[in-house]
Amino acid sequence: MAAAVQLLRRVLRGSPALLAAAGRRALGFSPPWVAAGRGGRRAALAAAGALGGLGLGLWRQAAMAASEEDEEDEELRQRFMAPPVSGLRELRRRRRELRSRMELLIMETQGEVCRALAALDPGAAFAVDTWERKEGGGGISCVLQDGEVFEKAGVNVSVVFGLLSEEAARQMRSRGKALKARDGKLPFCAMGVSSVIHPKNPHVPTMHFNYRYFEIEEADGTKQWWFGGGTDLTPTYLNEEDAVHFHKTLKEACDKHDLKLYPKYKKWCDDYFYIKHRGERRGIGGIFFDDVDSPSKEEAFQFVKSCAKAVVPCYIPIVKRHFRDSFTPEEKLWQQLRRGRYVEFNLVYDRGTKFGLLTPGSRIESILMSLPLTARWEYMHSPPQSSKEAEILEVLRNPKDWVH
Amino acid sequence: MAAAVQLLRRVLRGSPALLAAAGRRALGFSPPWVAAGRGGRRAALAAAGALGGLGLGLWRQAAMAASEEDEEDEELRQRFMAPPVSGLRELRRRRRELRSRMELLIMETQGEVCRALAALDPGAAFAVDTWERKEGGGGISCVLQDGEVFEKAGVNVSVVFGLLSEEAARQMRSRGKALKARDGKLPFCAMGVSSVIHPKNPHVPTMHFNYRYFEIEEADGTKQWWFGGGTDLTPTYLNEEDAVHFHKTLKEACDKHDLKLYPKYKKWCDDYFYIKHRGERRGIGGIFFDDVDSPSKEEAFQFVKSCAKAVVPCYIPIVKRHFRDSFTPEEKLWQQLRRGRYVEFNLVYDRGTKFGLLTPGSRIESILMSLPLTARWEYMHSPPQSSKEAEILEVLRNPKDWVH
Repeated sequence: MAAAVQLLRRVLRGSPALLAAAGRRALGFSPPWVAAGRGGRRAALAAAGALGGLGLGLWRQAAMAASEEDEEDEELRQRFMAPPVSGLRELRRRRRELRSRMELLIMETQGEVCRALAALDPGAAFAVDTWERKEGGGGISCVLQDGEVFEKAGVNVSVVFGLLSEEAARQMRSRGKALKARDGKLPFCAMGVSSVIHPKNPHVPTMHFNYRYFEIEEADGTKQWWFGGGTDLTPTYLNEEDAVHFHKTLKEACDKHDLKLYPKYKKWCDDYFYIKHRGERRGIGGIFFDDVDSPSKEEAFQFVKSCAKAVVPCYIPIVKRHFRDSFTPEEKLWQQLRRGRYVEFNLVYDRGTKFGLLTPGSRIESILMSLPLTARWEYMHSPPQSSKEAEILEVLRNPKDWVH
Repeated sequence: MAAAVQLLRRVLRGSPALLAAAGRRALGFSPPWVAAGRGGRRAALAAAGALGGLGLGLWRQAAMAASEEDEEDEELRQRFMAPPVSGLRELRRRRRELRSRMELLIMETQGEVCRALAALDPGAAFAVDTWERKEGGGGISCVLQDGEVFEKAGVNVSVVFGLLSEEAARQMRSRGKALKARDGKLPFCAMGVSSVIHPKNPHVPTMHFNYRYFEIEEADGTKQWWFGGGTDLTPTYLNEEDAVHFHKTLKEACDKHDLKLYPKYKKWCDDYFYIKHRGERRGIGGIFFDDVDSPSKEEAFQFVKSCAKAVVPCYIPIVKRHFRDSFTPEEKLWQQLRRGRYVEFNLVYDRGTKFGLLTPGSRIESILMSLPLTARWEYMHSPPQSSKEAEILEVLRNPKDWVH
């Protein structure tokens, strides 16, 4: 027994006491709210101990397997911004479940996007906060603030579960399908990656994306699941070439799965990001979808994966093209007014924000991370006809098709 | 007949064509949506014509009466920022009705506050916009922007009527009392004066007030009426002397009517201006009330009048005391973060704003006039313990009694 314990210690490079302490910070152990986690590992250890009399051959195999897994973990740690909420080993244990694959995808997306942004703004750094939700789950918030290129860039992962009030469940689901609760409460799991990037230069557009997965268990034990998400662009000034590149990249991601998806989700995006009281869209759109539960769980996941993988290629080339553009104080002012509209949309209409503010124990700083560093509201501001400002307003009022 | 027409023309100093054109701009004629107005005047003219044979004595009396009224009008014009929505003569015609007295009160309050602010910021000027609402009514928006003392100061009067959807009616009334509509629509009249003053200097607090009157006609013809309103202060830094002065002035206004009012409405204010997701109040409160329909229409109106008259004395001395205070860039930054919280409250929770954004044909620029010129959101900002910033946060989290 003593040798077995020793071996495992070596493989994991730490004493059990240190491992317990370090677990949540760096080693990808499951936090205590995940059923298996450390308990699961202990069970494996006991089984290995029972085989002690069979000689070292089997031990070596166990050690090698653990070592390979450790290398995999090490590789993931390089790619992730922090240990996943559910723990690396727990995710591996249930690697075939969609929940696990989705959690790995959102972690990977967070890492990819943060690395791509950080590479463009070398003087700035992402602050990485991991947080736990008392009611179940947690998240990882990565925020870069007041950099050279980005005014505020946030990329947030959250994996939360617990019980949902019927009101919150209503907010969660955009359409129809009433959910039958037991005693007004619904067990749920919600996970997603969401991000808003507000650059400094008014010629670099703001970008938002969000990919999420939900499970809700109804009173009779039926599990409802669905995906949602989207990527959209909010320029201060219109640049047709950028608009075409952005939409084309998203269209290609959609077209791999079904040619009907892009036109449908492009329209949904224009309809969703609508500031009704202004008669304007928030930006020039992209794609948006919700309640996606067909054709199958696997195909829906693959579609979401394609979209998530398209984030960096649809946005980063636009940033690179413009972050050194010169701009006037008037252009900066117009950007600030458009930031004000962004705040209006997010606080008045955005379902995700509303849902977050309603969910007990949700992390407000992560939800409101989407708000720009600075914004402006001028009474009765109206740009002159035929100006560059009027040009973008026209497109926000009457969305265009950028690719066919 | 020709002489009578001539006389009236002279009294009103203008030809009928000019009068008709000038009516809405400067002479206080009723706009076309008010039933009486010019039609009423024409009827009076015909009656005078019928008396033509009785000699000039009666004409002279009529002329003198008209002249006195004209002087009264002239005096009101001096005090008002623009002609009232319902027209001066129409308001005089139904001068005993509460609707008319309330409209005169809100017009007078607008004038008083604008003059007091303009006197402190002589380099800046109020832009005065009068606007009509297609569905009925209109308003007068007075906004001073980017002055020396005030970053943005808006004082808005609106008098709107028409049909209300049941959803909008629900938003309108804060508590209970379901309203029975015919075909889902309720005839209503809503009028009020509302104002938000955002000064530049972080040592001068933001102030908001709003006094309003509603009438809704139910399906059976019953008229529901009620008053609402309040005045509240949002300092960036706590100044106890200012807080006491502000609350004491409001308490004195309330105490003239009923000693129970101030404690009740002070608490209501703390409860109402609550940013739930932050666990903070918007400011250090003041008074807030809604659904006031007792002890009688007259007494309720007199109470509202006392509150409206207290606006200038509760706020202006505070502005005078601090608008020349020196401040640091850090203090300005903290002010901008608090402005961000102001935006959060107004867009997420404020019933007046929500009601406005929901009402078809409402004037968005006047509703969102309450938003500051500039605001800021920093991720995870938290002031150091025992700082001046932490001091005000403590009061926003745990409201204090400022007067007993």
